Amino acid sequence: LAKLLINSYGKSRVRLTKVSRTSDRHEIADLSIDIKLQGDFAASYTTGDNRKVIATDSMKNTVYVLAKENSFASIEDFATLLSNHFVDTYPQVSCADITMEESKWRRIKTDDKPHAHAFVSCGPEKRTCFLMRNRNLRDTVRMGGLTDLQVLKTAGSEFTNFVTDRYRTLKDAKDRIFATTIEALWTYSPDATEFNGHFVDIRGALLQTFATHYSLAVQQTLLTMGEAALAACQKIDAITLKLPNQHRIPFNLQPFGLENNNEIFVTTDEPFGSISGTVTRK
Amino acid sequence: LAKLLINSYGKSRVRLTKVSRTSDRHEIADLSIDIKLQGDFAASYTTGDNRKVIATDSMKNTVYVLAKENSFASIEDFATLLSNHFVDTYPQVSCADITMEESKWRRIKTDDKPHAHAFVSCGPEKRTCFLMRNRNLRDTVRMGGLTDLQVLKTAGSEFTNFVTDRYRTLKDAKDRIFATTIEALWTYSPDATEFNGHFVDIRGALLQTFATHYSLAVQQTLLTMGEAALAACQKIDAITLKLPNQHRIPFNLQPFGLENNNEIFVTTDEPFGSISGTVTRK
Amino acid sequence: LAKLLINSYGKSRVRLTKVSRTSDRHEIADLSIDIKLQGDFAASYTTGDNRKVIATDSMKNTVYVLAKENSFASIEDFATLLSNHFVDTYPQVSCADITMEESKWRRIKTDDKPHAHAFVSCGPEKRTCFLMRNRNLRDTVRMGGLTDLQVLKTAGSEFTNFVTDRYRTLKDAKDRIFATTIEALWTYSPDATEFNGHFVDIRGALLQTFATHYSLAVQQTLLTMGEAALAACQKIDAITLKLPNQHRIPFNLQPFGLENNNEIFVTTDEPFGSISGTVTRK
Amino acid sequence: LAKLLINSYGKSRVRLTKVSRTSDRHEIADLSIDIKLQGDFAASYTTGDNRKVIATDSMKNTVYVLAKENSFASIEDFATLLSNHFVDTYPQVSCADITMEESKWRRIKTDDKPHAHAFVSCGPEKRTCFLMRNRNLRDTVRMGGLTDLQVLKTAGSEFTNFVTDRYRTLKDAKDRIFATTIEALWTYSPDATEFNGHFVDIRGALLQTFATHYSLAVQQTLLTMGEAALAACQKIDAITLKLPNQHRIPFNLQPFGLENNNEIFVTTDEPFGSISGTVTRK
Repeated sequence: LAKLLINSYGKSRVRLTKVSRTSDRHEIADLSIDIKLQGDFAASYTTGDNRKVIATDSMKNTVYVLAKENSFASIEDFATLLSNHFVDTYPQVSCADITMEESKWRRIKTDDKPHAHAFVSCGPEKRTCFLMRNRNLRDTVRMGGLTDLQVLKTAGSEFTNFVTDRYRTLKDAKDRIFATTIEALWTYSPDATEFNGHFVDIRGALLQTFATHYSLAVQQTLLTMGEAALAACQKIDAITLKLPNQHRIPFNLQPFGLENNNEIFVTTDEPFGSISGTVTRK
Repeated sequence: LAKLLINSYGKSRVRLTKVSRTSDRHEIADLSIDIKLQGDFAASYTTGDNRKVIATDSMKNTVYVLAKENSFASIEDFATLLSNHFVDTYPQVSCADITMEESKWRRIKTDDKPHAHAFVSCGPEKRTCFLMRNRNLRDTVRMGGLTDLQVLKTAGSEFTNFVTDRYRTLKDAKDRIFATTIEALWTYSPDATEFNGHFVDIRGALLQTFATHYSLAVQQTLLTMGEAALAACQKIDAITLKLPNQHRIPFNLQPFGLENNNEIFVTTDEPFGSISGTVTRK
Repeated sequence: LAKLLINSYGKSRVRLTKVSRTSDRHEIADLSIDIKLQGDFAASYTTGDNRKVIATDSMKNTVYVLAKENSFASIEDFATLLSNHFVDTYPQVSCADITMEESKWRRIKTDDKPHAHAFVSCGPEKRTCFLMRNRNLRDTVRMGGLTDLQVLKTAGSEFTNFVTDRYRTLKDAKDRIFATTIEALWTYSPDATEFNGHFVDIRGALLQTFATHYSLAVQQTLLTMGEAALAACQKIDAITLKLPNQHRIPFNLQPFGLENNNEIFVTTDEPFGSISGTVTRK
Repeated sequence: LAKLLINSYGKSRVRLTKVSRTSDRHEIADLSIDIKLQGDFAASYTTGDNRKVIATDSMKNTVYVLAKENSFASIEDFATLLSNHFVDTYPQVSCADITMEESKWRRIKTDDKPHAHAFVSCGPEKRTCFLMRNRNLRDTVRMGGLTDLQVLKTAGSEFTNFVTDRYRTLKDAKDRIFATTIEALWTYSPDATEFNGHFVDIRGALLQTFATHYSLAVQQTLLTMGEAALAACQKIDAITLKLPNQHRIPFNLQPFGLENNNEIFVTTDEPFGSISGTVTRK
């Protein structure tokens, strides 16, 4: 009567801190890793026969063991190791998805020099990646990204001439605050290898464009940021951007006999506008 | 050089409390609503021409206005009103997605009777729905669901005979705690109308099955729960379940000269197993 | 030049699930425990001499060991065991504070009967306690409480005749929604022993009073709830209540040619009113 | 039978973004403000007589109005304005507490220069202050602080020679990761005025000391950091520090035939050690 159409399982939020002690100048990688497998696992669902099931606890162990046995230059490289491991080790696995988030730390400055082994968090911004190795496809899907990159500009943003009807109360704004938290995910070409350099280039292009683009709509800035990312890095084919519009609402000072010259705003978390788009090369 | 492949925009986290005062016995609906539109909005992205853009602020207003002007028996009904409104009012809209979460309140008992207008929160569990009205499709996609339904059983759960290899350290468990937080989303048939009754039936089947199914794997319980939901409600075609395995880890009492007879556990949030599956009718 | 004025240390968020398997009908206790010690620990601060320091890891172990070795009827009883343990075992401890939160689960009903070992979460409401055993005081301070008890009433609440001046824009409200999340902490008399019964009585009095009291101000309801708690349980000497005023703001429907007859509200999280008070016996 | 022993009320989470447009180079202040009043408000509790009650909504308005009418150099200065306003305007107010959190933004660099009006969030670290103006005391209590300053060091931290008994399983650690999130609150002398400079000096001393102090215990580092703060700023009398010990637990690689040379760690959020202390001048 019923059948299992789709299934997957894995381990989420495997949190790893790896310290590289190859010199006195320590390096740290602070990662959260999600693993998801698809394959010949239906017996576990249908009869509770787990003989082909790799325990999610074993997946967790695998993360720590592979982190010990390998050095890796980027989260994309470590995710490649992991996805290959699961597909190459277990014939029952048809597809292995790896999602990673990296929290960044910068060195504390002491006597104006970066310290060798003391760090301060760079904040909530995270570098992300998503790898999908499918046994039946030649190329692994490899995506890089970032999330929680919170930005704000106090000039250079309008929103005017939108639909006027019964449901509109918002006035045209010739000069408004534009605040958002950038989430981006881009697809690497099969021949990309320099993920750290590409990340720096793309992130820089996104920030530079946000700052300098004169915005007539969040949508327009989104497309311009996507174009800038594609221009900054030839090794990506597409980029998806999410730019929530985190409203700063001018506080009404008229009841107090004052004028709000675009100075005093209520900071809000919700509701928020949700603007997204995917930009590709022509 | 670049083109906009996909785009959508909308308003998220529009929070509405509606009080129905048709009698002394008040009713409340406590909803959070997300609206997402697709359509002929490319000009806003490419040139900042917003003439076809319905402001997300207007979408927010629309929620409150339609909530005032209409009575609705279920979140599915209100979501239908909203998705139809956007497609029917604006020719530039090709598709309107509505996502809703409903927080439930029950009446406080005073003198052993449910109070007419005082309520206590039922907790984090939320009833959800997702509606997608596409102008070019005859039927609206209508999905109901629930999220954050936290359950736990202290018997009737095994996990044994899974893959043994270098990466396994977990022992076979003949008797373990099974704790999860159910997330479910099901697809209604085009002729479904009694969403409240269906919700009660499906939720009941999920809980009953979780409690009584002897589990050889979370995967097996998932499929059994999905089958039970399909059996309990003929008006759904498919159900997707996510059952994170929220581990309770037996605390090692051996160093203290004690035996842990399956009594003392460390409650953990992460990492967690992530088990999911979609069950359809044959 | 500098001296250490106050110091304490401990372990926070020790999370324990204890299953009592004394019969086929299992019982669960789901606790989060914080331990804080004061005493002769200055050497650790001044010279890094840890010889008197009980590691916070050992405190964590102690929680699980004592949970195994003892049965306890209430969180107050378990907290008493723990605070006594630290003061009685370690002469360097002058004071041991124990804070506990208990998450409640109720049995899933199957065939209309409560199940023997399957549970569903009662939600975010938590029962709490705070115990402070000071070596130099005869009596342990013992407080019980609750937190995250979310309630709402849609009638029986006014707020009028408050200060009118330049800074006021809020109108008098003869009929408003009163929504709050109750946090309460009460002090037990030295001879109190039936903590579970007292908890039920006090919680009942708080809910009953919230529902039935005609409120002219959140402040007035707070005092009335405190009085009701003191009346409901003779074994407490005082109660502190925090009743954040979680505003539901009437949505302005006038721009749309509609009247808001106290039906349509914007649910808000912030800002919120913060009303608190401590009520004692005369 | 019952009496109101203590009471206070106020408004929490008033969120303000103020843009200073005095030149093309915009400045932003991003603040969250809590106000708490004590005074002659008992009538509101006892009889619902609100004639002396300043509505918390009016408090919120006051924040925005005073932010418009005044320029301020620091959160301490703005908090002083607010606390004075409430005590000086309303004779029924005996004490006004103001708590503020400031989220920091730095300028986005474009063409290697800081942009005039585009900013990126500095992350979760917040500058804080607490002001208490009591009508009957000559001096306002003025405290500055910071919170959510997340730091980590991978060398220079031991924890050894602590109490060995039945409850200890933790081994001596001659070289461990020390990760914490600094929360600090310091008390200014009555003659302090240069709060921004003091903040920079104290924050710098805390970070420098965390990085360079060879730690035999979190407690010892805490005291050393407090001493450094007092030495760095003569205008503070005391500092309270909270340094949660956010454990990075070495992953056991022995089952996999590998040795963990202090490289591979499990990142944990809970349980955590809670170390605190207040340091004053001799």
